[in-house]
Amino acid sequence: MSESGGYVIEDLSVGMSASVSKTITDADIVMFAGVSCDTNPVHLDEEYASQTMFGGRIAHGMLTAALVSAVLGTKLPGPGTIYLSQTMKFKAPVKPGNTVKATCTITELVPEKKRVIMSTVATVGDTVVMDGEAGLMVPSRG
Amino acid sequence: MSESGGYVIEDLSVGMSASVSKTITDADIVMFAGVSCDTNPVHLDEEYASQTMFGGRIAHGMLTAALVSAVLGTKLPGPGTIYLSQTMKFKAPVKPGNTVKATCTITELVPEKKRVIMSTVATVGDTVVMDGEAGLMVPSRG
Amino acid sequence: MSESGGYVIEDLSVGMSASVSKTITDADIVMFAGVSCDTNPVHLDEEYASQTMFGGRIAHGMLTAALVSAVLGTKLPGPGTIYLSQTMKFKAPVKPGNTVKATCTITELVPEKKRVIMSTVATVGDTVVMDGEAGLMVPSRG
Amino acid sequence: MSESGGYVIEDLSVGMSASVSKTITDADIVMFAGVSCDTNPVHLDEEYASQTMFGGRIAHGMLTAALVSAVLGTKLPGPGTIYLSQTMKFKAPVKPGNTVKATCTITELVPEKKRVIMSTVATVGDTVVMDGEAGLMVPSRG
Repeated sequence: MSESGGYVIEDLSVGMSASVSKTITDADIVMFAGVSCDTNPVHLDEEYASQTMFGGRIAHGMLTAALVSAVLGTKLPGPGTIYLSQTMKFKAPVKPGNTVKATCTITELVPEKKRVIMSTVATVGDTVVMDGEAGLMVPSRG
Repeated sequence: MSESGGYVIEDLSVGMSASVSKTITDADIVMFAGVSCDTNPVHLDEEYASQTMFGGRIAHGMLTAALVSAVLGTKLPGPGTIYLSQTMKFKAPVKPGNTVKATCTITELVPEKKRVIMSTVATVGDTVVMDGEAGLMVPSRG
Repeated sequence: MSESGGYVIEDLSVGMSASVSKTITDADIVMFAGVSCDTNPVHLDEEYASQTMFGGRIAHGMLTAALVSAVLGTKLPGPGTIYLSQTMKFKAPVKPGNTVKATCTITELVPEKKRVIMSTVATVGDTVVMDGEAGLMVPSRG
Repeated sequence: MSESGGYVIEDLSVGMSASVSKTITDADIVMFAGVSCDTNPVHLDEEYASQTMFGGRIAHGMLTAALVSAVLGTKLPGPGTIYLSQTMKFKAPVKPGNTVKATCTITELVPEKKRVIMSTVATVGDTVVMDGEAGLMVPSRG
């Protein structure tokens, strides 16, 4: 652990993994809309959303992405990590009531640059709803 | 406009641009923490954060990303857009009280696939805090 | 009433009682998680919680305790009260959608010290979910 | 660790300790008021509160208590813990902008009953604002 409470580069190895799971409620969607200004009716208007290919309201994609951020910032590598980059592909919708599990796994380490690459996958049950890759910088012990 | 309220592919052209601006308050950060489970102390603990390279609390990076999503989902291309992918690089921190402007600009169109590529840039004043690229699918008139 | 809007010690007698009732929604739980940093999955992750003895998500115990505080601070003795101490036993879970009634009753008065002891009980229907005792100091008329 | 993600009784020993720190913002106080119905003006009305012994608005005592709950439910013993009881004495006010650190330390273990007693102390800088004791039940490995 670093002084900041998270892992230092020396303690990380490829394959280490951590997860955060959360059930997405209507409250999450409303609060996310307020915070983000993303008032797209597909998130907030059931009558509108029921006419779309999704058949009903869906959660904001970035709400799922935020769970990825929770893993990186609170678990692995944890506090002290600098978030440099993220890619994401949205694969399937998340609906109110779904429980999303975000799992981040170290795929590459560049110790001399304190860099960490992690795969970031979010699932609902067996369905991948989002995947991508995060680039991070973590403290070193030295 | 499509039936869904947003643009159809036939109405879009390279260079079209739209923005959403929002002041990031302590309330946004607390609510984002609850929604995302991201309780990293760099967002919530001023004493901790003041000891980091940021010199004080910063907003969640995904909160800035959420403003990008707000542009795409409510303005350009607007409702009816399917969000396929997003890349982002975090360039500078956003602090409580900062006003973030997210601007999205069409850089490429693939009409036969109904695909749109947009640059996505977030700024605080003259400072770029995040940039990246969004991939989208929009309805067609036909 | 005191200048502060609440009761003064001279107006209180053993047996006086007041209540606050509130339905605990998903929104309350998400906001409480953000405010408290308490992201225990038993509150936020339905899949996890359904595997526990509770059979599903439950509200934070301190959210119930907060309703007790609402009685003391807004009704009896009301504004001007100094909250000195609280004991609580958690007896049964509170689930999203439950309506919690917090009732506080004066059990002892020590006028020369301006001290008030109150029993504090929270119920969902006929089930006691929390009970305990509050110690308070209230203004005097003199 | 138990299946639930927290510690099992066999892994705990007297003296183990964990903390959560959080800066209490106006947003926290407003959201706590909404969630709890505790609209005591000492928390929400600066003009009123400036006339009290506190000289200005203070945070809800139960908001500090909620940080104790965050330690118990997310760190030590962590998920899977059953919260049985809590005592608390409020020693000093918490003001908006203060950073509260809640620290919980195991003081007694009763393995045959899976019971854990922890001291629970909250501080702002060097000042103890709340102290008390938590009673918990944790899973066993067996």
